[in-house]
Amino acid sequence: MSGNIYQQGLGKNAANFVPLSPLSFIERTASVYPRRTSVIHGQRQFTWSETYARCRRLASALVAHGVKRGDTVALMLPNVPPMFEAHFGVPMAGAVLNTLNTRLDPEAVAFMLQHGEAKVLITDPEFAAIIRPALDLLEGDKPLIIDALDDEYPGTDRVGTLLYEDFLAGGNPDYPWSLPADEWDAIALNYTSGTTGNPKGVVYHHRGAYLNAASNIISWGMPQHAVYLWTLPMFHCNGWCFPWTMAANAGVNVCLRKVDPALIFELIRREKVSHICGAPIVYGMLINAPEQLRAGIEHSVAGLIAGAAPPAAIIEGAERVGFDITHVYGLTETYGPASVCAKHPEWDELPIDRRAERNGRQGVRYHMQEGLTVMDPQTMQEVPADGETMGELMFRGNLVMKGYLKNEKATQEAFAGGWFHTGDLGVLQPDGYVKIKDRSKDVIISGGENISSLEVEEVLYRHPAVLTAAVVARPDEKWGEVPAAYIEVKDGAGVTADDIVAHCREHLARFKVPKHIEFCVLPKTSTGKIQKFALREMAKSASATE
Amino acid sequence: MSGNIYQQGLGKNAANFVPLSPLSFIERTASVYPRRTSVIHGQRQFTWSETYARCRRLASALVAHGVKRGDTVALMLPNVPPMFEAHFGVPMAGAVLNTLNTRLDPEAVAFMLQHGEAKVLITDPEFAAIIRPALDLLEGDKPLIIDALDDEYPGTDRVGTLLYEDFLAGGNPDYPWSLPADEWDAIALNYTSGTTGNPKGVVYHHRGAYLNAASNIISWGMPQHAVYLWTLPMFHCNGWCFPWTMAANAGVNVCLRKVDPALIFELIRREKVSHICGAPIVYGMLINAPEQLRAGIEHSVAGLIAGAAPPAAIIEGAERVGFDITHVYGLTETYGPASVCAKHPEWDELPIDRRAERNGRQGVRYHMQEGLTVMDPQTMQEVPADGETMGELMFRGNLVMKGYLKNEKATQEAFAGGWFHTGDLGVLQPDGYVKIKDRSKDVIISGGENISSLEVEEVLYRHPAVLTAAVVARPDEKWGEVPAAYIEVKDGAGVTADDIVAHCREHLARFKVPKHIEFCVLPKTSTGKIQKFALREMAKSASATE
Repeated sequence: MSGNIYQQGLGKNAANFVPLSPLSFIERTASVYPRRTSVIHGQRQFTWSETYARCRRLASALVAHGVKRGDTVALMLPNVPPMFEAHFGVPMAGAVLNTLNTRLDPEAVAFMLQHGEAKVLITDPEFAAIIRPALDLLEGDKPLIIDALDDEYPGTDRVGTLLYEDFLAGGNPDYPWSLPADEWDAIALNYTSGTTGNPKGVVYHHRGAYLNAASNIISWGMPQHAVYLWTLPMFHCNGWCFPWTMAANAGVNVCLRKVDPALIFELIRREKVSHICGAPIVYGMLINAPEQLRAGIEHSVAGLIAGAAPPAAIIEGAERVGFDITHVYGLTETYGPASVCAKHPEWDELPIDRRAERNGRQGVRYHMQEGLTVMDPQTMQEVPADGETMGELMFRGNLVMKGYLKNEKATQEAFAGGWFHTGDLGVLQPDGYVKIKDRSKDVIISGGENISSLEVEEVLYRHPAVLTAAVVARPDEKWGEVPAAYIEVKDGAGVTADDIVAHCREHLARFKVPKHIEFCVLPKTSTGKIQKFALREMAKSASATE
Repeated sequence: MSGNIYQQGLGKNAANFVPLSPLSFIERTASVYPRRTSVIHGQRQFTWSETYARCRRLASALVAHGVKRGDTVALMLPNVPPMFEAHFGVPMAGAVLNTLNTRLDPEAVAFMLQHGEAKVLITDPEFAAIIRPALDLLEGDKPLIIDALDDEYPGTDRVGTLLYEDFLAGGNPDYPWSLPADEWDAIALNYTSGTTGNPKGVVYHHRGAYLNAASNIISWGMPQHAVYLWTLPMFHCNGWCFPWTMAANAGVNVCLRKVDPALIFELIRREKVSHICGAPIVYGMLINAPEQLRAGIEHSVAGLIAGAAPPAAIIEGAERVGFDITHVYGLTETYGPASVCAKHPEWDELPIDRRAERNGRQGVRYHMQEGLTVMDPQTMQEVPADGETMGELMFRGNLVMKGYLKNEKATQEAFAGGWFHTGDLGVLQPDGYVKIKDRSKDVIISGGENISSLEVEEVLYRHPAVLTAAVVARPDEKWGEVPAAYIEVKDGAGVTADDIVAHCREHLARFKVPKHIEFCVLPKTSTGKIQKFALREMAKSASATE
């Protein structure tokens, strides 16, 4: 016998060890709360017992159609019940869930289907016009196509020959699915937006999905039976793992095909929505929506915000219209949020603007993440917590992806030195909270000085006429780069470039004041992130033609 | 290359895999909330930063004194700060925490120190008179003794030569402890009370302690910064894992050397206690305490109850005096509670007695436990959910112990058929909730009919004069066994055996009515469990001498 006394005869067995998987949560909730509402979509409503049975039908039908353990099942769906069900039914079949960004073009979709080797694709009529040419681009066997029609959408354009409801009808509602053999097994594949080069396929495992689903509850303080409105696309990092969170807390999923402030406020009022998540752009739309849309809503709604570094002004504005905002941060590679700007009760006594500033930081690791810090990526030394020394934000722990699919080089680079490199630049503040200053590629270097585009944007957002703002580098003969600002103004607001410059001069060192100001509609990704690479192109051309 | 595409190049590394351990929680909280209160004990008060530093000092001092990975460190302590600190400092040293029941006699303590091979024992002056003879009984090397004096206790009787505070003073507050190499490594050793034969040493691992600490938060809906009063002994299943839970939720631990209703209500009032845990006996004392003790307490206190099957009357009584009761169930082998009688909002509309009846069931698995059911232990088939067919309660999942230390036979028996056998008998109700009918050894078989001692006790508790009641089998020539009732009456209540019999006849079939009734002080364990084996002995002698 070797080792200490605790290493003898105390091994794992079926009674004391079970792989962690978020699939356990839906089994529990369907059994404990079978008659509680699980999913609401327009006129349709399901109970947890019904949703669980539909997930099992889906799993068994996938297996009957030849899907095997480790096969990929792709989804091109808005936030509709089949999308929620796929988060359980696909892994119950042992397969891997690959949700596709519904705003992609056919080429990008084709790349993902090919690279992920999807065996099945479930799709919505709204995207038939993208899927059809994407399929034409595929080499080799095409995936099995299942069309999920939706009563809440007028179109019925189909790509395949199978209908989702028929597919389910052929499945077994009591299908005896099993947990993964290993909690390290893949549960999901999520492609990064890939602003340069091909997108990378981020692979999640069951263990991480389970822990992040639980961490969402603990780190947010989310109660059982929360009513959650799907303002966040489920295709985005699996809706930050919230499908699994909602199964754990036996809550209500209120579906939403698209972000429409009138509909959102109506659903908040009617369904007594208690929780939402979203990018700053979503909150921006809600803040700036006509006040009468909010009439009759008497309760406060808890809101998680992330997706891009949110300006404090957005947090402040959201609080003013009745959202209790918690700021989180993460990336596709960290299952969505893996850090939270954990609040301190004493912040409640601060004026709203100072509180928003505190809340606007990326904060500290999630309860079930192990590490978040800022390091010099060359030396892998933590920067001093002085709020000034810049470094790269790094994560470590169980809420970090398995790696990039079929891309060992990128995987190794991402994990160099035993930490996940986010590519975001920031500082450690004296209280240990992390604050992003910029994406490494977004820093503007002007006359040898670094300018944080975020810092300039923060100032722009404080101007009352500004709805959305983005600052990028513009090539400049004298300075190397200068800041250029792109601004969307609020409806009916009158403002000139000179006004903006004057406002910036009040709050910024002169070298940080934008040298070029343009009023326009900003290019955005599906999740509301501003596409800075597009703006950089605009800035370059503007510079060249001047 | 073998396997599917997700099994290639996506392995574990330092960035994406970290062993689960509740030690991660204190590191996080000390860093995020360094100045928040961690522990209050009488006049003493610590912050999370201070507590964390004290835990690191303890770990480094243990290592400096020769403690190695996998060594056992025993504790004979009431609920005082050193007991809380040991839950972190001991495993930070790689050692295993062995908390001893402070009501044990020297022989039992000696058995545990010997069997667990304790290298160090930290003890309180109150127990010096037990520890000294226990040490005399030990063969071989004695453990290193550390006396933890306490300003809240008048005695200063010391057993060893080292004082806890001096020991800490010699430690390093910045000690670079590390997580266990494997989350399956042992974190704690807890001996069962062992009413027959030698106690068994239940071994917990870091993974289970982590998951149960989190499950306490999720399954109870416990918020961040809860104020937790230590009415439950920390030596009992590591306080149901609540030292680790409180570290995760950055709450306040209000220490308590002994269960004293006057002090408990004073602390609830003064410290604004929000949460407590305890056995039914604790709630019984609080319910029956003079009303004026509760004066000035305006807030509701959330209370977990477990430890023995609680009569519905206790739950009802506790609700009447301002506790919001949640009923949990578990055993030493399941890290304390591993099931919860999950509430349904619609129960709120029931009359209090019917609600208490619903809440009085053992319920359903904890969020992070995988299975709880009732089975025929011979066939390992689940009983029908008819509320009538008896079977044995069985658990399965990550909240089940590693096994019994140095006892492979008992370990294998406990895990036979891939489930942990609790030894409790019960039924599955139609809603899938488990209800205990009895410990297998507590069933009374009278004229071939099974009588549930719990059912008779439930009726006894409904009599207004009854404070505590226990029913056991008494040998009987004619019937084999008959029920005998042992009753503690409330202060000032006048009641006769005939009154009790009349009350029982109203609510029970005649063969279930106790044939022998005795008014006495009931023998109890330190956690308030009634010692039925002692009552059975009393019943036997009474039967023999009649």
